[in-house]
Amino acid sequence: MGNTKKAGGAGLRGQSAGETKLCTVGKIGAGLTYRGYDVDDLATHATFYETAYLILHGKLPNQTELDAYKKKINALRGLPEAVKKTLELIPRTAHPMDVMRTGCSILGNVEGETDFSQQLDKADRLVAIFPSIICYWYKFVTEGVRIETASDIDGVGAHFLEMLHGKAPSELHARVMDVSLILYAEHEFNASTFTGRVVASTLSDIHSCVTASIGALRGPLHGGANEAAMALIEQWSSAEEAEAAIGEMLRTKQLIMGFGHAVYTERDPRNAIIKRWSEKLAEEVGDTVLYPVSCAVEKKMWDEKKLFPNADFFHASAYHFMGIPTELFTPIFVMSRVTGWTAHVMEQRENNRIIRPNADYTGPDTRKVGPIEERD
Amino acid sequence: MGNTKKAGGAGLRGQSAGETKLCTVGKIGAGLTYRGYDVDDLATHATFYETAYLILHGKLPNQTELDAYKKKINALRGLPEAVKKTLELIPRTAHPMDVMRTGCSILGNVEGETDFSQQLDKADRLVAIFPSIICYWYKFVTEGVRIETASDIDGVGAHFLEMLHGKAPSELHARVMDVSLILYAEHEFNASTFTGRVVASTLSDIHSCVTASIGALRGPLHGGANEAAMALIEQWSSAEEAEAAIGEMLRTKQLIMGFGHAVYTERDPRNAIIKRWSEKLAEEVGDTVLYPVSCAVEKKMWDEKKLFPNADFFHASAYHFMGIPTELFTPIFVMSRVTGWTAHVMEQRENNRIIRPNADYTGPDTRKVGPIEERD
Repeated sequence: MGNTKKAGGAGLRGQSAGETKLCTVGKIGAGLTYRGYDVDDLATHATFYETAYLILHGKLPNQTELDAYKKKINALRGLPEAVKKTLELIPRTAHPMDVMRTGCSILGNVEGETDFSQQLDKADRLVAIFPSIICYWYKFVTEGVRIETASDIDGVGAHFLEMLHGKAPSELHARVMDVSLILYAEHEFNASTFTGRVVASTLSDIHSCVTASIGALRGPLHGGANEAAMALIEQWSSAEEAEAAIGEMLRTKQLIMGFGHAVYTERDPRNAIIKRWSEKLAEEVGDTVLYPVSCAVEKKMWDEKKLFPNADFFHASAYHFMGIPTELFTPIFVMSRVTGWTAHVMEQRENNRIIRPNADYTGPDTRKVGPIEERD
Repeated sequence: MGNTKKAGGAGLRGQSAGETKLCTVGKIGAGLTYRGYDVDDLATHATFYETAYLILHGKLPNQTELDAYKKKINALRGLPEAVKKTLELIPRTAHPMDVMRTGCSILGNVEGETDFSQQLDKADRLVAIFPSIICYWYKFVTEGVRIETASDIDGVGAHFLEMLHGKAPSELHARVMDVSLILYAEHEFNASTFTGRVVASTLSDIHSCVTASIGALRGPLHGGANEAAMALIEQWSSAEEAEAAIGEMLRTKQLIMGFGHAVYTERDPRNAIIKRWSEKLAEEVGDTVLYPVSCAVEKKMWDEKKLFPNADFFHASAYHFMGIPTELFTPIFVMSRVTGWTAHVMEQRENNRIIRPNADYTGPDTRKVGPIEERD
């Protein structure tokens, strides 16, 4: 290993691990683009179906393509019997991300990818089925009902809300969910996506890749931040209380979730977008606590630490206003990011070399196996 | 991303991605050590229990520690009801590595790691349970029987053979399986282990890490090589036929599995060990075909291409002589490597930073979302 190059920093930070055509993150400290389109532009002028199509197919769909794509996705929402039965075996106490991971893994057993020519169809199926997986389990363990997941409702997020609440969402809620899914869809070589690419680099199947990515997103340093942000803001009953408490948390050096970012240095471009929608939802439900508390925390963190909210922070209040239980926040992230994950799997396959770095050895020198009676 | 450093090569080859105390691979072109002990020394003077203990606990056990460790592992072989029922839902047509991945994932739902203080116990459980998972499914789908997986037989490999064949293995078979598990136990930052470390770096749970690693090992560029080697050698009925066929395959530039290695440049130190045991098994079963064919392929590949067999090549004949179906070869790899995977997860957690590299962007320039009616 004498010719091993030293990485730029722990966690491969600042280090290139490959090429991508899918995304730029943090250009000039702020931007986020999917295949050249700014995420703000997409969140304003496109839907999640269009964004998913863009990420997976490389172009924004025209009307004919969009109609066909919607029809295809919406027809793929049903769950196979083996998946339903497996979900019914998972106890209420399980972590919802373990449910997503297991749902994806069992799906690979009953309708696996036997040839890479199937990859786009398998990706579409995963985009369609994740809301069904989590809602089927959630309604079964909380209400004891076996819900029908097939539906022709317009929108992946709307489908999720429809199953969760047992009725079609309002236009506003459907739109906020759609925007949320656009914002989370893709983010370059983040840890879960990079996980999927390492798995893809052994030429494994797409379900193995996505199952692995879900496992990475489950970690509190990655996908769990929106849930942690919710736990933070729901402690306080007014902006003043929140401001004082944050001040105290900063003085005692407690970790405050939902702020700062590994790549962005000036601002997270997704924050302003979801913040606007959270404000609209606060008006709709007549909230006088959670939104003002969130704004007070944002202001205090900036004033004291020059730390900005990331995408997760205002997602917490937005999801809460739509009646989504906190434990389902990270599974929503999966419903969205699966587009980016699967696009990266396909990109890795296009020009593959197995991802196999080296390590710097810091262990003991060479030694001999001694007889067991002479060991400490 | 102007300050992104260029990686040493595609697939992070020759690039350090972190530190490890667990393993050296390819020192002076050949060596493989686990915590300072040469794999040859371990395969000669230790058992897999001792090796697993070494990898997970950092030292070779004394007699008291070894007795306690064996007792602990052997008591952890039973399957929870939810795991059994999930395995029964997986069809015969599934890939056995998908079964392993799903078995690990569902286990995380019913006895998950809720705190990192449980990590060693969870690792032990995984070492004990993987043979049970694959054999329970295999016997259910091939013979329609629900086997009892609890057993106090000595040896992880012996437990596997006992369940597979319905009777305790011979001393020779038990020893060969044990050596095989020692050889595959750990291999630094290979793709499946690196996958597990990336997942661990988000501070996700150990079942997510191992589930992800299984998905990576499933790929034909990684764990699938012993199965491919079997498919290769079982085509021929004599050494002469094999030699001629390999010559033709080389002339027509066909890929020949089981040879060469991403890190070793002179020889794979595991090959000579498993080759000796394969020869012993060939004598025992009176083989006059598979072992001579394997030797002829080895000689031809060296004479023509200076390519050496890796650990997988003679494992194919060795496993075959013990009556193991080819499709179960890669799951055996899991039973062994889970020790290395979980040790790396624990090492990553000790000094963690989220693994989040950058990418070089090669996609389109910034562009605007146009109205749908104006799109191509």
